[in-house]
Amino acid sequence: MTRPTNDTFLRALLREPVEYTPIWLMRQAGRYLPEYNETRRRAGSFLDLCKTPQLACEATLQPLARFDLDAAILFSDILTVPDAMGLGLYFAEGEGPRFERPLRSEWEIRDLTAPDPNVHLRYVMDAVAEIRRALNHSLPLIGFSGSPWTLACYMVEGGSSADYRLVKTMLYDRPDLLHRILDVTTTAVTDYLNAQIESGVQAVMIFDSWGGALSHAAYREFSLSYMERIVAGLKKSHGGERVPSIVFTKGGGQWLEAIAAIGCDAVGLDWTTDLGEARQRIGHRVALQGNLDPMALFASPQQVAAEACRVLDSFGAGSGHVFNLGHGISQFTPPEHVTALVDAVHSHSRRGSGN
Amino acid sequence: MTRPTNDTFLRALLREPVEYTPIWLMRQAGRYLPEYNETRRRAGSFLDLCKTPQLACEATLQPLARFDLDAAILFSDILTVPDAMGLGLYFAEGEGPRFERPLRSEWEIRDLTAPDPNVHLRYVMDAVAEIRRALNHSLPLIGFSGSPWTLACYMVEGGSSADYRLVKTMLYDRPDLLHRILDVTTTAVTDYLNAQIESGVQAVMIFDSWGGALSHAAYREFSLSYMERIVAGLKKSHGGERVPSIVFTKGGGQWLEAIAAIGCDAVGLDWTTDLGEARQRIGHRVALQGNLDPMALFASPQQVAAEACRVLDSFGAGSGHVFNLGHGISQFTPPEHVTALVDAVHSHSRRGSGN
Repeated sequence: MTRPTNDTFLRALLREPVEYTPIWLMRQAGRYLPEYNETRRRAGSFLDLCKTPQLACEATLQPLARFDLDAAILFSDILTVPDAMGLGLYFAEGEGPRFERPLRSEWEIRDLTAPDPNVHLRYVMDAVAEIRRALNHSLPLIGFSGSPWTLACYMVEGGSSADYRLVKTMLYDRPDLLHRILDVTTTAVTDYLNAQIESGVQAVMIFDSWGGALSHAAYREFSLSYMERIVAGLKKSHGGERVPSIVFTKGGGQWLEAIAAIGCDAVGLDWTTDLGEARQRIGHRVALQGNLDPMALFASPQQVAAEACRVLDSFGAGSGHVFNLGHGISQFTPPEHVTALVDAVHSHSRRGSGN
Repeated sequence: MTRPTNDTFLRALLREPVEYTPIWLMRQAGRYLPEYNETRRRAGSFLDLCKTPQLACEATLQPLARFDLDAAILFSDILTVPDAMGLGLYFAEGEGPRFERPLRSEWEIRDLTAPDPNVHLRYVMDAVAEIRRALNHSLPLIGFSGSPWTLACYMVEGGSSADYRLVKTMLYDRPDLLHRILDVTTTAVTDYLNAQIESGVQAVMIFDSWGGALSHAAYREFSLSYMERIVAGLKKSHGGERVPSIVFTKGGGQWLEAIAAIGCDAVGLDWTTDLGEARQRIGHRVALQGNLDPMALFASPQQVAAEACRVLDSFGAGSGHVFNLGHGISQFTPPEHVTALVDAVHSHSRRGSGN
């Protein structure tokens, strides 16, 4: 196996020299693209789209046809793992993800087992293989999973939550039960990401979307330590090529040093952290990914470009930066502003400040 | 004017010696108390409750009758100022605060003026005076306001927002308009807090509930600089007594050094920041207020006490700590768990670790 023709993203993650700062966007395949909405209509539902490899491949490729992005990311959902554990994922219209059978009783938690990703998540592995064929070595493909803590939030709450009351009651009152959920989920996520790597993804990212809701002490005990176990259990290379890992805790800026120490190759940052200060804090231990405020894409294309340059300049010269938003792109984003962003990142960083 | 009989809270804010760590709770008068719900029913609506000094006084005193708290806080809403500016505050059932006339056009923003608090917010000043009479020098009374940025979020969005899209579009595209809103609101908040001080509040707190949604650079430009102007414009004493100020940016842990430098006496922290590390970072510049996760109150009373001790121990010995939650108390909190919390904070800190 060889690196893709455009390997700038992989080089930046490994802090090898690059000609410009690579860019991709969290949720780059999604509702802000009319062609995505058309594919989703054809699929019938979001979950059918995720579970049909041909359609997941189609959605994955759509943003690459429009924008000069430097990586593809598997189109899927972070909740496929608990779904494969038997919790029954569904999407209530306008309400976000829900589980038919959230974890509420001790025996349900004791009975939890890690699924075999090559059986219960076969559709994801088939999508990865199909996307790799379609990409034909042009661009790297990113695989991903939710973090154990983030998955546990959904598994216990049964869906999104404003205050995480149920899962945090468990955390403070029955930490043994929460650790049991996290332990099984950690095994499941490790197996899942390794199966994605074997199916062809060339980098992996762990999304810890709700880590920032934890106290400093609880973050280390209930989120970071499990991500550390996953990173330690990941296949470090496939087909002779390194498979870099990215860890992203939204709201984790205060804990950057601790996150950078768990063995991952890169840390994702939301827009609340200054990239230059982050770089000073972590030195050369990891690459950094981020961190434009997704709402900056609602300004004029000229202002979008100016904000992109600010992010590049805050990181400064040298490799080790992957440009991204600080969170998923909003469904209301005008696609032509994304064009302005990608062009600004490439041209400004080629001029020298970004690498 | 003299200090209240129990002045532990004021002494801690000013880093004077204390016998134990004082405690009060954000939103301590509220829906988790059955007696509050009864008062609210009698008032007719939340806004009528805020606007009727006698009922606001009743609600303010309720938690003090139940719990051995060390401060009272004026019962009111952070959105009284924009309401007095003519935006028409109302509460849609189950939907939170909304404005009838959010700021959407340039001429509305140009026309904005700061209200006279002694005229348009007379009901707040009357409530302060009534509460002071009722407290009869037993406990200090805290006054408060929302921060200009947080108020601007509501004024532009027209209510709560998941992504702050409208106000951030203004921030990135028309910063001049947002600065105009923040400028007028800063004058209004300064006048409002000074009127509260003249009416009898003995400490003031600025709630920057949404500051943590900003990028590091935007936080300084659009939130912190305006809070700095307010703090500089506050009456520093009244009746011969110092009136300490507290600034609380939820999600502002990364910016602690900058917040501690704006001239306030204390900084409020949410639960994501370790108090001991915070103290190391800011030295002796300010007192710290916080920071138990409000969800910890859903554990058993024994666990609640254990978590309270962890917070006290993380601050360590010496004055300068006001115990609080890291955010407002949840409406679902069992009141008897609050009793356990207050008792644990007082008894553990008297034993020496918390002061």
